[in-house]
Amino acid sequence: MALVITRMSTYFLRTLREDPADAELASHKLLVRAGYIRRMGPGLYTWLPIGLRVFEKVEQVIREEMDAIGGFEMRFGSLLPREPYEASHRWQDYGDTLFRLKDRKGADYLLAPTHEEFFTLVVKDLYQSYKDLPLIIYHINPKYRDEARPRAGLLRCREFSMKDSYSFDIDDEGLKVSYEKHRVAYQRTLERLGLEYTMVRAMSGAMGGSRSEEFLVEMDGGEDSFVLAPSGFAANTEALRIPAPDPVDASGVGPVQVIDTPDTPTIDSLVAVVNERYPRADRPWTAADTLKNLVYKVTDVDGAESALIIGLPGDREVDEKRLVAAIEPAQAVPFSEADFAAYPQLAKGYIGPFKAGVGQVLGENAPFRIRYLVDPRVVDGTRWVTGANEVDRHQLDVVYGRDFTSDGVLDVAEVREGDPAPDGSGPLKLARGVEIGHIFQLGRKYAEALGLKVLDENGKLVTVTMGSYGFGPSRAVAVLAEKYHDEKGLAWPPQVAPFDVHIVAAGNQEEITQAAEQLAGQLDAAGVAVILDDRKERPGVKFADAELLGMPTIVVVGRSLADGVVEIRDRATGEIAKVPFEQAVGQLISGSTR
Amino acid sequence: MALVITRMSTYFLRTLREDPADAELASHKLLVRAGYIRRMGPGLYTWLPIGLRVFEKVEQVIREEMDAIGGFEMRFGSLLPREPYEASHRWQDYGDTLFRLKDRKGADYLLAPTHEEFFTLVVKDLYQSYKDLPLIIYHINPKYRDEARPRAGLLRCREFSMKDSYSFDIDDEGLKVSYEKHRVAYQRTLERLGLEYTMVRAMSGAMGGSRSEEFLVEMDGGEDSFVLAPSGFAANTEALRIPAPDPVDASGVGPVQVIDTPDTPTIDSLVAVVNERYPRADRPWTAADTLKNLVYKVTDVDGAESALIIGLPGDREVDEKRLVAAIEPAQAVPFSEADFAAYPQLAKGYIGPFKAGVGQVLGENAPFRIRYLVDPRVVDGTRWVTGANEVDRHQLDVVYGRDFTSDGVLDVAEVREGDPAPDGSGPLKLARGVEIGHIFQLGRKYAEALGLKVLDENGKLVTVTMGSYGFGPSRAVAVLAEKYHDEKGLAWPPQVAPFDVHIVAAGNQEEITQAAEQLAGQLDAAGVAVILDDRKERPGVKFADAELLGMPTIVVVGRSLADGVVEIRDRATGEIAKVPFEQAVGQLISGSTR
Repeated sequence: MALVITRMSTYFLRTLREDPADAELASHKLLVRAGYIRRMGPGLYTWLPIGLRVFEKVEQVIREEMDAIGGFEMRFGSLLPREPYEASHRWQDYGDTLFRLKDRKGADYLLAPTHEEFFTLVVKDLYQSYKDLPLIIYHINPKYRDEARPRAGLLRCREFSMKDSYSFDIDDEGLKVSYEKHRVAYQRTLERLGLEYTMVRAMSGAMGGSRSEEFLVEMDGGEDSFVLAPSGFAANTEALRIPAPDPVDASGVGPVQVIDTPDTPTIDSLVAVVNERYPRADRPWTAADTLKNLVYKVTDVDGAESALIIGLPGDREVDEKRLVAAIEPAQAVPFSEADFAAYPQLAKGYIGPFKAGVGQVLGENAPFRIRYLVDPRVVDGTRWVTGANEVDRHQLDVVYGRDFTSDGVLDVAEVREGDPAPDGSGPLKLARGVEIGHIFQLGRKYAEALGLKVLDENGKLVTVTMGSYGFGPSRAVAVLAEKYHDEKGLAWPPQVAPFDVHIVAAGNQEEITQAAEQLAGQLDAAGVAVILDDRKERPGVKFADAELLGMPTIVVVGRSLADGVVEIRDRATGEIAKVPFEQAVGQLISGSTR
Repeated sequence: MALVITRMSTYFLRTLREDPADAELASHKLLVRAGYIRRMGPGLYTWLPIGLRVFEKVEQVIREEMDAIGGFEMRFGSLLPREPYEASHRWQDYGDTLFRLKDRKGADYLLAPTHEEFFTLVVKDLYQSYKDLPLIIYHINPKYRDEARPRAGLLRCREFSMKDSYSFDIDDEGLKVSYEKHRVAYQRTLERLGLEYTMVRAMSGAMGGSRSEEFLVEMDGGEDSFVLAPSGFAANTEALRIPAPDPVDASGVGPVQVIDTPDTPTIDSLVAVVNERYPRADRPWTAADTLKNLVYKVTDVDGAESALIIGLPGDREVDEKRLVAAIEPAQAVPFSEADFAAYPQLAKGYIGPFKAGVGQVLGENAPFRIRYLVDPRVVDGTRWVTGANEVDRHQLDVVYGRDFTSDGVLDVAEVREGDPAPDGSGPLKLARGVEIGHIFQLGRKYAEALGLKVLDENGKLVTVTMGSYGFGPSRAVAVLAEKYHDEKGLAWPPQVAPFDVHIVAAGNQEEITQAAEQLAGQLDAAGVAVILDDRKERPGVKFADAELLGMPTIVVVGRSLADGVVEIRDRATGEIAKVPFEQAVGQLISGSTR
């Protein structure tokens, strides 16, 4: 079918000279400058006409791969009543991230973050038997999350597009099959889009469920940190579980010594003091020998507040994102001065699990009555330099398992390049990426909360097991722009380019205009999507715009037309071919990816 | 391209035996029963897979006709910041109909009812010169209105789909051209969809602007009332302006007489009493000779309250929708007992504009100090029977222009079949319909509010003039279902049918299954969209479902296959053709609309 030729003289497209002030990433800068997207508010973007074309191509690839695994497309709305989200606890668990509103009658509604609840209900509504299963249904829809820090253009928006699909199976085996189908669909989708990816083990977060993996595209500006083991194992740092070292024989360690440590405001100054005054026989003390005890105020989802102390080696910081992931839906903030005032038993800067003459003081059942969780590296027999619970005093040789224990393990310390992989395959590599897809084995959480049961082969009601699978088309556009650009602008791969060919009429002479129009008409008739720069602009402006806009092929109809020749430029490689005008269409069609 | 054959054995589709409890209209009942849509909450619907196919076909027709008039598709989000809607006054003017919400920082947002403000801003952002104009841009997007009474399935939803386009022109002439283009696009769209329509003059309502027309599809259950004149003139009853009759010579009418009228609680009883005791010389008194004065409490958009009395002939009621349209964004409710208590000067049931011994009492500058507006039929010289402002008393021969005047005209009485057309062409016909499209000449309201100016030919900044044009694809689906069904179910026209051919495998014998599969495969390969009923169900169940689902062509592969024959049924006409199996594909392809 012949398409409509898009003429830049009338197209609703304006390129900008300046980068947007709030942009750091190239994708954000270029998509705005080239007129693909426009900011409407914090974390809110508009697709301008040329951008919508890219978005829809990406969406179509996703749709085709979902259909290929037997998914059925449908469409829910975004404005949803509260009750089902109350039943699943997400109404509470999502906290401030959920956009909530009331209708004119005062009834509670929300803007969908995802649709697990309503997909569960529609299946409950229509299905009764195991014979109806398995089922995969999906939609591609706007989603809403009131992000605390929307950023990076399309990468972290408050309103964004998501393909979310849901699988329904009678048993765990079935769920595995549905999950595997999605894995394959996502792999195919990312390959078709031209995006290299890493699949990483992930946390399920507020979604619930037992197993989940993220599809990450490695990228410097990415928000997700992940680790790669020599074995190929990869995990989101939130999902990584640090291997606990073996217990240590501490039989030779002397008793706890209380030492004076004035003027040691930092771990480094403390280490210097103990090395100077209490040198260790085998090797110098290091920051990793100190036990840092950090105090947090934890707020439960029901609003209850409590104190939590986290003990971890002094050379490590708490990774905020790992902490959030480990305790959500509860939230934690470091103790303020006011909080410390309410706990006079805590000597700020000198907190330790043990107190000479008292014994263990930290822990739910210990004298201070404060929950105490430790890093997985704090194992039996490890000896620590830690606070003495008195100002200007520390203790040496406080041994875990001998002098103190904990209420449990909390694995939230920062992960470092070179840390041992949990599978023992060697040192971890650290990388950053953007999450494009996320697949979850939800299990029965939503089906149980909402009563989705079907009759099994024996006529008994059983709860259905579910998976949920997200893929972000708008985020994929940003990542494509990030991966496919150079200093001159965007350089789309053909499968997602808004147009196949960008024709530049380089000159206002009648014969150039006519030749460019003729070429555009012939390509259009052949089903090639053409954008024609027919503006009354200098050739330099047109060339710069063509490079900024990033169509795979640029055809210049200009001065060389006098010799019967046009230039065909490959945007990605920069290669230029001079081609006789009459052969141009044939060559472009054979080279077209359509 | 070969499509995927949809098999009913696995398709996410269940037909229901019962009509939904809340449904009155056939379209609502059938779309739910046939599994096209599902209710999610009040005024909130989900497209199930088969329904989404119809919706997307309708959407595509609209898109193609918008592209044909040079519109550029883009896409705004639905979650919008308050400020631009504050500037246009719609934040206030939309009242309870606007869904409002706050983000985590307390900033105000709304869910878009339409996008005039943001389209204005994006053009302001990118355009500077008259040379950039004219421009038509559009999107197809969910819209949100917190309707007081959502009803009739897809006909009045709180979340619904709309194509809204916006035109930008340098002058009024340009606006007329853009408006006319949309008229043509809408006519083509409705013709392609197979919907007969009436274009009616309409009110602009909260949109503002000078001229607007609605595209209505006539339908008994429709919410819009409109009138048709013999001349072809048509108007929404809200937009109809009743012609004022000529003044009457009242020189022969005697002075006002106060009469005792106990026990006349109704207009009819009053008319009976005056006919009995004060007969009129020329003809009996009728209800149309009485002047009814109704008291309303009006609430302005800024919350200020005031009283309003509407004087209209006693044989007419106030049409609530006309009243709403006439005074919005203010709102009016009839006076309560408590309201009357605050206005002791008003003798409820006996209110009149004139009081013997006092003179005119109603009106902003008259003794009662209450704004008084009258029906257009209350013209100079008309004589009225009306209240005497004393309990149990009325007045005869109160003459407009002689005894009283008003603060103005308010044309909100019900319109009746047979009323004279405003263009003098004869009696009006009344009809009901559903609004599918609405086109507005907005003028400069939004451009002024938001500062959209461009440089004209003389380098002077001038304000752009705009149009806005809505079309409802989801509502169109409901109207199509309403127009194309019979007692057995839906009967889609081919251009919007979810599938072209519905193959019923009527019997579980291997040869029937195989033949049905073969037929489906061949049709699919030829690009015909097929739904194949391969379920293990009785043929009767399958036939009933095929008729309920409503594909244009039903092919029955059943017992007659033994004679080498299949049945091709036309769903709309009921015609049945027996066709040799080998010829079936050929015949179906040549009959296919694709």
